[in-house]
Amino acid sequence: MDGVDYLADERSKAQFDVDELKIVWAGSRHAFEVSDRISRLVASDPAFRKDNRPMLGRKELFKNTLRKATYAWKRIIELCLNEEEASKLRFYVDEPAFTDLHWGMFVPAIKGQGTDEQQQKWLPLAYKMQIIGCYAQTELGHGSNVQGLETTATFDPQTDEFIIHSPTLTSSKWWPGGLGKISTHGVVYARLITDGQDHGVHGFIVQLRSLDDHSPLPGITVGDIGMKFGNGAYNTMDNGVLRFDHVRIPRNQMLMRVFQVTREGKVKQSNVPRQLVYGTMVFVRQTIVADASCAISRAVCIATRYSAIRRQFGSQNGGAETQVIDYKTQQNRLFPLLASAYAFRFVGEWLKWLYTDVTQRLQANDFSTLPEAHACTAGLKSLTTSATADAIEECRKLCGGHGYLCTSGLPELFAVYVPACTYEGDNIVLLLQVARFLMKTVSQLGSGKKPVGTTAYMGRAEHLLQCQSDVQRADDWLKPSAILEAFEARATRMSVACARNLSKFKNQEDGFLELQADLVEAAVAHCQLIVVSKFIEKLQQDIPGNGVKQVLGLLCNVYALHILHKHLGDFLSTGCITPKQGSLASELQRSLCSQVRPNAIALVDAFNYTDHYLGSVLGRSDGNVYPKLYEEAWKDPLNDTVVPDGYHEYIRPLLKQQLRTARL
Amino acid sequence: MDGVDYLADERSKAQFDVDELKIVWAGSRHAFEVSDRISRLVASDPAFRKDNRPMLGRKELFKNTLRKATYAWKRIIELCLNEEEASKLRFYVDEPAFTDLHWGMFVPAIKGQGTDEQQQKWLPLAYKMQIIGCYAQTELGHGSNVQGLETTATFDPQTDEFIIHSPTLTSSKWWPGGLGKISTHGVVYARLITDGQDHGVHGFIVQLRSLDDHSPLPGITVGDIGMKFGNGAYNTMDNGVLRFDHVRIPRNQMLMRVFQVTREGKVKQSNVPRQLVYGTMVFVRQTIVADASCAISRAVCIATRYSAIRRQFGSQNGGAETQVIDYKTQQNRLFPLLASAYAFRFVGEWLKWLYTDVTQRLQANDFSTLPEAHACTAGLKSLTTSATADAIEECRKLCGGHGYLCTSGLPELFAVYVPACTYEGDNIVLLLQVARFLMKTVSQLGSGKKPVGTTAYMGRAEHLLQCQSDVQRADDWLKPSAILEAFEARATRMSVACARNLSKFKNQEDGFLELQADLVEAAVAHCQLIVVSKFIEKLQQDIPGNGVKQVLGLLCNVYALHILHKHLGDFLSTGCITPKQGSLASELQRSLCSQVRPNAIALVDAFNYTDHYLGSVLGRSDGNVYPKLYEEAWKDPLNDTVVPDGYHEYIRPLLKQQLRTARL
Ligand SMILES: Cc1cc2nc3c(=O)[nH]c(=O)nc-3n(C[C@H](O)[C@H](O)[C@H](O)COP(=O)(O)OP(=O)(O)OC[C@H]3O[C@@H](n4cnc5c(N)ncnc54)[C@H](O)[C@@H]3O)c2cc1C
Ligand SMILES: Cc1cc2nc3c(=O)[nH]c(=O)nc-3n(C[C@H](O)[C@H](O)[C@H](O)COP(=O)(O)OP(=O)(O)OC[C@H]3O[C@@H](n4cnc5c(N)ncnc54)[C@H](O)[C@@H]3O)c2cc1C
Repeated sequence: MDGVDYLADERSKAQFDVDELKIVWAGSRHAFEVSDRISRLVASDPAFRKDNRPMLGRKELFKNTLRKATYAWKRIIELCLNEEEASKLRFYVDEPAFTDLHWGMFVPAIKGQGTDEQQQKWLPLAYKMQIIGCYAQTELGHGSNVQGLETTATFDPQTDEFIIHSPTLTSSKWWPGGLGKISTHGVVYARLITDGQDHGVHGFIVQLRSLDDHSPLPGITVGDIGMKFGNGAYNTMDNGVLRFDHVRIPRNQMLMRVFQVTREGKVKQSNVPRQLVYGTMVFVRQTIVADASCAISRAVCIATRYSAIRRQFGSQNGGAETQVIDYKTQQNRLFPLLASAYAFRFVGEWLKWLYTDVTQRLQANDFSTLPEAHACTAGLKSLTTSATADAIEECRKLCGGHGYLCTSGLPELFAVYVPACTYEGDNIVLLLQVARFLMKTVSQLGSGKKPVGTTAYMGRAEHLLQCQSDVQRADDWLKPSAILEAFEARATRMSVACARNLSKFKNQEDGFLELQADLVEAAVAHCQLIVVSKFIEKLQQDIPGNGVKQVLGLLCNVYALHILHKHLGDFLSTGCITPKQGSLASELQRSLCSQVRPNAIALVDAFNYTDHYLGSVLGRSDGNVYPKLYEEAWKDPLNDTVVPDGYHEYIRPLLKQQLRTARL
Repeated sequence: MDGVDYLADERSKAQFDVDELKIVWAGSRHAFEVSDRISRLVASDPAFRKDNRPMLGRKELFKNTLRKATYAWKRIIELCLNEEEASKLRFYVDEPAFTDLHWGMFVPAIKGQGTDEQQQKWLPLAYKMQIIGCYAQTELGHGSNVQGLETTATFDPQTDEFIIHSPTLTSSKWWPGGLGKISTHGVVYARLITDGQDHGVHGFIVQLRSLDDHSPLPGITVGDIGMKFGNGAYNTMDNGVLRFDHVRIPRNQMLMRVFQVTREGKVKQSNVPRQLVYGTMVFVRQTIVADASCAISRAVCIATRYSAIRRQFGSQNGGAETQVIDYKTQQNRLFPLLASAYAFRFVGEWLKWLYTDVTQRLQANDFSTLPEAHACTAGLKSLTTSATADAIEECRKLCGGHGYLCTSGLPELFAVYVPACTYEGDNIVLLLQVARFLMKTVSQLGSGKKPVGTTAYMGRAEHLLQCQSDVQRADDWLKPSAILEAFEARATRMSVACARNLSKFKNQEDGFLELQADLVEAAVAHCQLIVVSKFIEKLQQDIPGNGVKQVLGLLCNVYALHILHKHLGDFLSTGCITPKQGSLASELQRSLCSQVRPNAIALVDAFNYTDHYLGSVLGRSDGNVYPKLYEEAWKDPLNDTVVPDGYHEYIRPLLKQQLRTARL
């Protein structure tokens, strides 16, 4: 029945102030208010409806996205939304669109790599969307290895132009979002060639389509690369293919903040430090970590609410059956994911701070923390996106059969989320970068150069290499110091073991290739430590609200013990803990899950998601699942007619044994 | 270029006779020949084309499936295919359809639960497809808990009929495949009520639609439940919703092989043993394990071939870059999945034997092995389907960005496969059943009752509880006995530990609920042991062909060591192996992966999949990936026009700053 709250009982069980936790989740009261206001605005506007997405064919779907993205922009202008509000609005519209790349990659690329002049020329056009831009880096043949891109930008001193060209099939640009059908411009990455010499890969602003009639400019072949994973999902985006046939652009459209080509075709490095590029990467990857916490919390919210509604087995004397959320297996699968949502939220918040810190230092010409910050964001991007992708699918399975329906919202969430494991750096390639940084850190330990930031713990390597956990009772695992030491010891020992094995190779690079698998595991251990330690640090802050700090403390432990159990082999084989201590951890985890149980619904309510944003019948905030599932089913196009199209041609002849003569 | 084999070099590296391995994979020369012939038949018939699936809207997609399924049946008749060939043909058509449920569930249900008379009446109709049937068990409110179904079948002695009725919303049938739009009949499960008494859930043959015009019969509301995960994928199937409003069927349409209702409304048990039902479950789940080996091998075939084509980084002096299959991380993720494909194949083969064995015993009234066979198939269904679902997604990630395109084949393979983790028993619920059986086995250890079949090893519990692995060098892990003992010891110790903890509870059921998470892990350990030991047994058979046995031995080790590494925590915490022995295992695994490397392409060629069946541009057997990816892209509907539909309404006003007046 409409209007009834089937989860009211669950909500009343919560042992903390859910409104206060909403603010902690949002980051601040201000952020909460903006988020709350804009999400309701989007939810209440029928133009932003999205429940029909899975049923639309590609063309309809795409056209619909053009409408929504344009309408969103119109509303942004009409309501005079500021940047924060505008970006929240796009976020809650919750549909990948060309605007994501325009605002998220094109504009930042010009800001980060363009000269002041270039910024003055291009940014106002972009800010008003008089041009729409994409970020065209990846090619058919090269993604991870950016230095291997094949597109060329050859300087022609005669005309003061670059000639952009696609010399091979594999040099075709491939994947850029917004490119396929919409972008008028792109930041195109190409090998700079002057005077026959190859100066590596640089960015160029290239106009792709006419501003009059949208047709591709001469020499440009451009299109969509085709359907991607899932219904709706990323198919609202026109990831594109692009080929250049000797396309000429003026010299001043090379992004020249760092590297410059003069009128004569001489190349020179400006006095702006190259490392600035890393600052941009730190920025983009930090937003990906924040997105991970959104995606995982959405999935967890759906699975948690539905698990409280779903009952199966355990009815005694005709009473109600057991809510599946009361099964220990369900808790053991679900609650660590709930804890991960909070863990990723807080580490994302910290990364935002880190980005600000790095930026300020860069402005003061202090590059000392950059490598560490870069490794740390690369690693956290990898860790959180991989875990989130897995978590969404696990949440889907936690919903049993009904999770497989599009109306559960989980299939589309998964399909739209998974490429985060690949774009902005393949997750394994990123972990290998982290490992490289860790090996460098270890190699410098003797040198007196103190490891900084998230690797500071390695300064205590001597202790960490031989310490023994002093946990004696299950409750001892509640102490943050016990958790931290075990995680630090594990990470240190795994890194040091890799470094030792590396040193056995004559050629370091050979060793690095041979030991890749171990190196990746060491990198993971390091990144998990960061997540755990940032959660613990968060709890050391002042957190107002009745019971809020307590329940977050609970989740912090659940997260840490979950990782400990999952990677028990690491902890035991490095001798950081004993089997007995491992089983005490499991024992504690069981009791922590029971403590989470009464708070579970309130913990997902704290994300403050509207039903529109969640987009899930199973996750409805009022828990009114079954009537709505039933209602939704009838909307499928197949139900337009009682007898399906194809009955007369195929099924009837089959049943009537008249196939011999049927035209099939 | 067409006609060139880009993988020829790879193929020439193989150290074994790939044609002989094809026969091992197929199961026999006969099976290979049938499979090979039928798969080519399907591949060469344009009517079975499937590459356009992701682009079709629901209605078109569904109609297309009706055409294909009907056409397939027509070909089966025309070519006079026997049962084996017909089922292979349906398999290679590779599209979920109502026929799957007709042949896979409806017919077997009547065979298993119908009396001789009922079989004589209904089976001929079904065999000729003069009726089309589905299997209608699950309801909106109950899936796992079949005993909780709410649909009623009330006997009316006045008319000698049952009245089938849906008393609540949650009693609506929900999920049955083929029900939504096609089935004329269903085996419907309902609570049998006679004389006011509830006799639990039984099966009834119910006609659903008119054989004249396909309209639902009076009292029946039926439709499709809507879109499911993925493009194409399971959306070719009409999973349905069904409600009964006092629908009358004759008494003789209750399936009465085991349980009967007389003319007077008296119920009685026939002399046919109830346990027969389990025989059917063993059968169905055994086919699911076989399907798992198909799905995982398909994904692995795609990822392996593409990994040999894809090059990224590592170019020296302008030479070719490194094939990504040469990276150790890639091998470490991919080769254990390749090994799993073979492991699941062989355990599936063994399960087929087990089913025959159980059936023969049942016929001889020997029920002794049934519980063990039942637990074992339940566990293996769970293990192989979960591992396969994860493996497909991992293979997709192994293909980098391009794996996310539908043309890679992997998104659809994942979406269509994952429900196997849920249907025919939720994987966690199944593992809990296995655990229950294991606890019973442990509790009887003292009683002199010898554990049989796959639990026979527990007869040596005393030894296994205290033995220590004698591995001293990495190569010692090559000995099957070393592997087996470690796996047996781990499984025994985990089960026994659970049993001990259980015994601390006053009420066993409370204990069982509280310890669910540990019990599931013990069940997994037991099932993994079965897979490993059946692989080892397979290798003890005579396997002809140059190098075939050797390469399979390699894969057996890779599989076992992969599980050992993944669950290292289990092995260490139960003291089955030492940390040192664990790291020797990793060392050996590294060298085994190098040995797999030259054989990798041939190992996936041995699956003998046509390009049609694989359905993947990345997995093409000739390795001609890039030109075909490029070619396929242009087929997307969005590329029908250069300027996209929606440009004039939305994008142009946006660019021209004319949104204020635009109608959006
Ligand atoms: C949805 C989506 C949107 C995208 N949007 C854009 C965009 O807007 N603009 C743009 O320019 N690009 C975009 N991309 C492209 C994306 O950035 C690349 O796909 C990504 O960088 C991965 O590169 P790849 O595809 O070449 O993977 P590959 O490098 O080919 O990876 C294949 C496999 O090789 C492994 N591998 C590669 N190198 C190594 C190594 N050195 N050691 C060990 N293993 C290795 C990987 O781990 C992986 O398993 C997008 C991609 C997707 C999927
Ligand atoms: C594609 C597809 C096709 C199908 N085809 C058919 C068909 O043809 N005919 C038909 O009749 N049905 C069909 N089904 C239904 C299917 O059999 C059920 O979905 C399946 O049995 C799972 O039941 P459920 O959905 O009720 O899951 P639930 O039992 O609701 O599971 C929800 C969660 O609760 C957990 N859980 C449940 N019980 C316990 C317990 N005792 N202890 C611990 N945890 C528990 C599960 O692990 C899961 O995480 C189909 C389903 C799908 C997805």
